[in-house]
Amino acid sequence: MPKNISEKMFKNNAFCELLGIEYPIIQGGMAWISDAELAAGVSNAGGLGLIAAMSSNGEQLRAEIQKCKKLTDKPFGVNIMLMSPFCDEVAKVVIEEGVKVLTTGAGNPAKYMPMWLEAGIKVIPVTASVAHAKLMQRAGASALIAEGQEAGGHIGELTTMALIPQVADAVTVPLAAAGGIADGRGIAAVFMLGAEAVQVGTRFLVAKECGIHQNYKDFVLKANDVATTVTGRRTGHPVRSLKSEFSRSFSKIENDPNVTDEEIGKLGSGALRAAAKDGDKLKGSFMAGQIAGLVNKEQTAKDIIEEMFSKAKELLS
Amino acid sequence: MPKNISEKMFKNNAFCELLGIEYPIIQGGMAWISDAELAAGVSNAGGLGLIAAMSSNGEQLRAEIQKCKKLTDKPFGVNIMLMSPFCDEVAKVVIEEGVKVLTTGAGNPAKYMPMWLEAGIKVIPVTASVAHAKLMQRAGASALIAEGQEAGGHIGELTTMALIPQVADAVTVPLAAAGGIADGRGIAAVFMLGAEAVQVGTRFLVAKECGIHQNYKDFVLKANDVATTVTGRRTGHPVRSLKSEFSRSFSKIENDPNVTDEEIGKLGSGALRAAAKDGDKLKGSFMAGQIAGLVNKEQTAKDIIEEMFSKAKELLS
Repeated sequence: MPKNISEKMFKNNAFCELLGIEYPIIQGGMAWISDAELAAGVSNAGGLGLIAAMSSNGEQLRAEIQKCKKLTDKPFGVNIMLMSPFCDEVAKVVIEEGVKVLTTGAGNPAKYMPMWLEAGIKVIPVTASVAHAKLMQRAGASALIAEGQEAGGHIGELTTMALIPQVADAVTVPLAAAGGIADGRGIAAVFMLGAEAVQVGTRFLVAKECGIHQNYKDFVLKANDVATTVTGRRTGHPVRSLKSEFSRSFSKIENDPNVTDEEIGKLGSGALRAAAKDGDKLKGSFMAGQIAGLVNKEQTAKDIIEEMFSKAKELLS
Repeated sequence: MPKNISEKMFKNNAFCELLGIEYPIIQGGMAWISDAELAAGVSNAGGLGLIAAMSSNGEQLRAEIQKCKKLTDKPFGVNIMLMSPFCDEVAKVVIEEGVKVLTTGAGNPAKYMPMWLEAGIKVIPVTASVAHAKLMQRAGASALIAEGQEAGGHIGELTTMALIPQVADAVTVPLAAAGGIADGRGIAAVFMLGAEAVQVGTRFLVAKECGIHQNYKDFVLKANDVATTVTGRRTGHPVRSLKSEFSRSFSKIENDPNVTDEEIGKLGSGALRAAAKDGDKLKGSFMAGQIAGLVNKEQTAKDIIEEMFSKAKELLS
């Protein structure tokens, strides 16, 4: 078997050692989705669960972190959305609550890096290009998650296949891959490209521990390979979601030259909540990746993780 | 070593057996680029070289095929661009000239399949979705090339990472992967996803046997991870190329609601030739994939292929 690769996956894995986890898998920090229950479910299964801070204020996030501590004694992390208006306060709360791992998205965490590193927190920025990856490494990142545009939610331009080897050649910190990974084949593939861990979002949408509306889960379970679309390119904030009434009307409005970017920006607000909490097909933005077509059964986080890694191990053995 | 995967790559490889080649690698059929010299260079190196019929008429293609026969006694193929006005003509010429392998792009080859199969030709359609892949298999495809949107030239929506496993689950014919593959890591990765061969375009642009203008080769050699862009989405014919004066002005015009789709269509004509033959940065469309950032040296086709497969073998050994 390929010693270098399998050793990286099953022994002396950089992410397992860095984060104190059993399997090198990180659950994506998904707004309105990644809460204490899902994070605890993934962490209890041996992966790294994440609570999405999204636009929570400090006390809301503190309550979610304390709830997660009651549900697991395994390591879990928080995903900080750097565009959040409450970023300064949540940046302090994670220190006060003794969170050990942070992933960051939608920007440059440089402003908070010194205080987080000072507190002994492992900071793992999500990146979508070589230049940003190098910048994050210089800023003190403990590791990186390079995310391809096949992923759900806010995306970049590079695909996982093109991004991972180019980032792997450019940085020395451990690298995780995200985007297009929902089974053991995807894990084995990105390890070949130079990653030592995976971040998975879409498949965890249908985890038993994931509390989103059943309409959302059914939407993912029924999705085929061409079920997703990208909106928001016009305003420079592309987002991948399942094709729906909402995405269709958003595209139509987005392509209307008489509509201002400000008006388009407003359209999105509330759409994530409407999908996750209400399962509302008309008002909801159901974020998911292109790999949704491979996701066809609800399972516990434990079954998902064990199934993925047993297949990856089989491919590499 | 992973027996199933390595056996597939180095012994009893479906593509090597089907096409009578030494390495399971197909050179992309690139308009104005993939001529007799490049095809013969790749075939002599043990891969499958392809002549791009693009918009050649029957006699132009016949001359190129006969030229290739003089340059190699190894198997080579022809890529048929199904939107070509001369498609009916070239479809007959490949039979008359005894071509053994065809790849098809930009449409549905069903109309020609019976006569090609009757002539004993192996037909390998390029596909970008599960539904089209199943359609092609039903039509009699000998194998399939599933191409992700990180590839250069005309592209679909799905990325290689998302497309390959979903197509692999849907068809039984041998599957090759294209898009984002320029080194041994990419080969090993797509084999993990279920492919048994690769199609490579961008890296062969800088092959010694590739006769494109040196400006084009230098453009590829200098490209970084974010050097490509996609134009043509508005007219439903997205194309990936290196960012250039041409792509920038094309985008500007494309985003002008006062410009008609017909006018946009006209813009593209001649741009491929201007890039490949004249190296014209103002008028040329320099097609290349997102993996161009990994391509940084000119080599013979033989050195490219041997370097790629020796790395893939190392990863899988």
